[in-house]
Amino acid sequence: MKRTAAELAEHLGAKLTGDRNAVLTGVASPGRARAEDLIYLESPRHRDRAEKSAAASVIAKPGERFAGKTVLEVANPKLAFAKAAAWLLPETRTHAYVHPSAIISPSAKVAPSASIGPYVVIEDEVQIGAGTQVAAFCFLGHGARLGEDCILHPHVTLYAGARIGHRVEIHSGAVIGSDGFGYVSGEGRNWKFPQIGSVEIADDVEIGANTAIDRGSLETTRIAKGVKIDNLVQIAHNVEIGEHSIIAAQTGVSGSSTIGKSVLIAGQVGIADHCHLEDGSVAGAQAGIPTGKTIRKGQVVWGTPARPLDKFKEQYAWFARLPELADRLRKLEASTKPRS
Amino acid sequence: MKRTAAELAEHLGAKLTGDRNAVLTGVASPGRARAEDLIYLESPRHRDRAEKSAAASVIAKPGERFAGKTVLEVANPKLAFAKAAAWLLPETRTHAYVHPSAIISPSAKVAPSASIGPYVVIEDEVQIGAGTQVAAFCFLGHGARLGEDCILHPHVTLYAGARIGHRVEIHSGAVIGSDGFGYVSGEGRNWKFPQIGSVEIADDVEIGANTAIDRGSLETTRIAKGVKIDNLVQIAHNVEIGEHSIIAAQTGVSGSSTIGKSVLIAGQVGIADHCHLEDGSVAGAQAGIPTGKTIRKGQVVWGTPARPLDKFKEQYAWFARLPELADRLRKLEASTKPRS
Amino acid sequence: MKRTAAELAEHLGAKLTGDRNAVLTGVASPGRARAEDLIYLESPRHRDRAEKSAAASVIAKPGERFAGKTVLEVANPKLAFAKAAAWLLPETRTHAYVHPSAIISPSAKVAPSASIGPYVVIEDEVQIGAGTQVAAFCFLGHGARLGEDCILHPHVTLYAGARIGHRVEIHSGAVIGSDGFGYVSGEGRNWKFPQIGSVEIADDVEIGANTAIDRGSLETTRIAKGVKIDNLVQIAHNVEIGEHSIIAAQTGVSGSSTIGKSVLIAGQVGIADHCHLEDGSVAGAQAGIPTGKTIRKGQVVWGTPARPLDKFKEQYAWFARLPELADRLRKLEASTKPRS
Repeated sequence: MKRTAAELAEHLGAKLTGDRNAVLTGVASPGRARAEDLIYLESPRHRDRAEKSAAASVIAKPGERFAGKTVLEVANPKLAFAKAAAWLLPETRTHAYVHPSAIISPSAKVAPSASIGPYVVIEDEVQIGAGTQVAAFCFLGHGARLGEDCILHPHVTLYAGARIGHRVEIHSGAVIGSDGFGYVSGEGRNWKFPQIGSVEIADDVEIGANTAIDRGSLETTRIAKGVKIDNLVQIAHNVEIGEHSIIAAQTGVSGSSTIGKSVLIAGQVGIADHCHLEDGSVAGAQAGIPTGKTIRKGQVVWGTPARPLDKFKEQYAWFARLPELADRLRKLEASTKPRS
Repeated sequence: MKRTAAELAEHLGAKLTGDRNAVLTGVASPGRARAEDLIYLESPRHRDRAEKSAAASVIAKPGERFAGKTVLEVANPKLAFAKAAAWLLPETRTHAYVHPSAIISPSAKVAPSASIGPYVVIEDEVQIGAGTQVAAFCFLGHGARLGEDCILHPHVTLYAGARIGHRVEIHSGAVIGSDGFGYVSGEGRNWKFPQIGSVEIADDVEIGANTAIDRGSLETTRIAKGVKIDNLVQIAHNVEIGEHSIIAAQTGVSGSSTIGKSVLIAGQVGIADHCHLEDGSVAGAQAGIPTGKTIRKGQVVWGTPARPLDKFKEQYAWFARLPELADRLRKLEASTKPRS
Repeated sequence: MKRTAAELAEHLGAKLTGDRNAVLTGVASPGRARAEDLIYLESPRHRDRAEKSAAASVIAKPGERFAGKTVLEVANPKLAFAKAAAWLLPETRTHAYVHPSAIISPSAKVAPSASIGPYVVIEDEVQIGAGTQVAAFCFLGHGARLGEDCILHPHVTLYAGARIGHRVEIHSGAVIGSDGFGYVSGEGRNWKFPQIGSVEIADDVEIGANTAIDRGSLETTRIAKGVKIDNLVQIAHNVEIGEHSIIAAQTGVSGSSTIGKSVLIAGQVGIADHCHLEDGSVAGAQAGIPTGKTIRKGQVVWGTPARPLDKFKEQYAWFARLPELADRLRKLEASTKPRS
């Protein structure tokens, strides 16, 4: 897309200083930018890189100036840059088509504006909304539903009955709706607990590569609007994740745990079953939250078992000083020993 | 399937109180059940939900009564419910067929009662037993063998030579028989150690989505009868897992470790190479078991490096009190300081 | 391949004792070897197994002798065995062919000696080098490039623009070039930061099953020559990994972290964003390296947050003795209490 700096300033609500007609065709890092790429400066530390960049236009904080460059002034340059990118970059939208190798059940309803790639398999009763793109090798099981303007990258599997909202993007290898992991031990073996619930993923969710989201056992696994899930994440049966929460790579959420709104979960966190993370809480990388635990609203936790971050840090500082503490204790014992 | 409460009581060996002819067509949670769904009550805490449920039939502990409901009394309601579900729910068995898009080597032997989905690739010398279902996009490499009544969900990969028993269910994205991760460093590079062993998976195993199980290097990776493996688990070369053990999501078992029978391994556990977990041992979530370590029969461990659970808890309780201990030590030092 | 012991000795630069004409057709473990298989002995502990093996030829340390066996003497038997295996074992190279079911864009350039399996999808402008094998269900997105003599196992996904060097082996389910996980929070939702960078994988890299490697956001994710990556590993946007480094299963490397040459990262390690692991450093299993941390050249670290291994071990030893320390402190307090 070809835009002027003035058009972008208007789109962002930014104050413009410099050439209103500077042309913008893309975004880039300062080191890679060409003249028509937009860059941004968040921290004064990187001012030099922005200054030297070939880019003609910069998003920066109010008052910043760069010799010979057009400046768009905003309070939050990184946020404005993300919005500008979404506005400037060409959509990856392919034109509507159905590859002749796709196998589509006669009972499936595929919107005419959807695009269906090669070797896609679409089973009975599946519904696919307008503008949705389904790439090669995707499997949509019996009765699965995809909303409008979704993107399924190659090799995505939707088990039967999975329901996906609008503008959901699912990366390659992700599996949605697989059986939960529930067994009852008895008579020397493990009996499978029924895994017949459903999975519902709301609008504007993004799901990373090779992530697995299980269907509910008897209930529903729910991912709310705007949730972002990274690669290789495990979401177990009956889990509920609230709006706009973020879950980084390789984290696992066990059965029946609930996660509130705008919760931030770092990488490799383990959340046991029946936990509750309230709105706005934060779990640091590799934290382990034991069965049934509640993390309070806005609380930040770290460690295994997880505790409030400041306590963890204080305790950990003393952990590092344990050899010193032990030495001091030994000296004290020696000095207070009764001399016989 | 349509059954009566009396038939189910007989199947379960349960005592029936109420309407022997109550009809059962499915199972559900109390909140979602219709009259013909079976529910169960395990804990008195949830009695109210069972009472209010629309279900006409309940599995519960001896002596429990619910107004207007038929009760099937058993010692272990959850176990009986799991068995009832297996008995009541319609099998997902599809009829025998071979989709015309499947590519099957003339030297492969596929049982006439097996079903082979669209875009399946079956290489030379593969064997597939009676009643086995292979869903879309599965790849069965040269000489792989699948027993009877297995279910392979879409996108499963069996490398050449993988051997799978009867009634094995493998979820989407699982990879069985990939090369182990073994290198020998020398002359400034990493030389691949030969990864030419095999992988054998016994009867009644279930394997989760996107799990990877490597073939042996020179020996065999073995998963015994009844083992249940969750999503995103890593099983390395030469590992052996004993009967009826359970491995939760995102756990990793490193090369040549052996796991006994009925071992329980929680999520995100890391087991280094050459460990031995004896029968009935338990590793808590995120535990880390160092190279060569043995966990004794029935022992429960937690932490990294893992230790007996009660010791870990005692040590951890003191860890949390480290700031207090340090303070007490400081006071003691002050009070015993010689006054000059 | 059929070779004599003398030919192998020459290939390895080993000293031979015994029958120069002993025939070698494969490699095996002592217990499984037939007469024509090569075995090796690294540790005197396993001497007995080697002695009893049916193998006629053994690689061992200088001076070792086995009754009736030909011995190839080398300083590093395991390394020599790995080299011998690479030399003796038949290459899995298939003959050049293109399966008729492969969908190949007319603008793609596929070397005549490459082999393309069933149901492969190759988009516009893709390049595939001589001798490269692409197995069933692989997806090569727009403009992806594969060098010579690569092996892609079934179900590998290369997003558009991914660049892969020569002799790279990628296992099933791996995803290369997926979007990085970067969002900017604002106005109550998460805005996607542009993920438009590239991914470059150099020569002689091996990538495990179901591993995910994201493209850069504005820059490039780079995996250098000879790097070996295990199964289920997560490599985030903009990460750079230096030559011959090794990354074990289920490890995650977060955005913009850099890893030097010959770094060794064990399983389930978590490396936060903007870390730097210098050449030859080592991270123990499950270690957690916090944001922005540098691990110095050759340093070995363990724990979360990670610290030098010897310090971690010393601190952890005291952690295990915390109940004892607390008890000693209590006694000291009692004995120094002023008697009133």
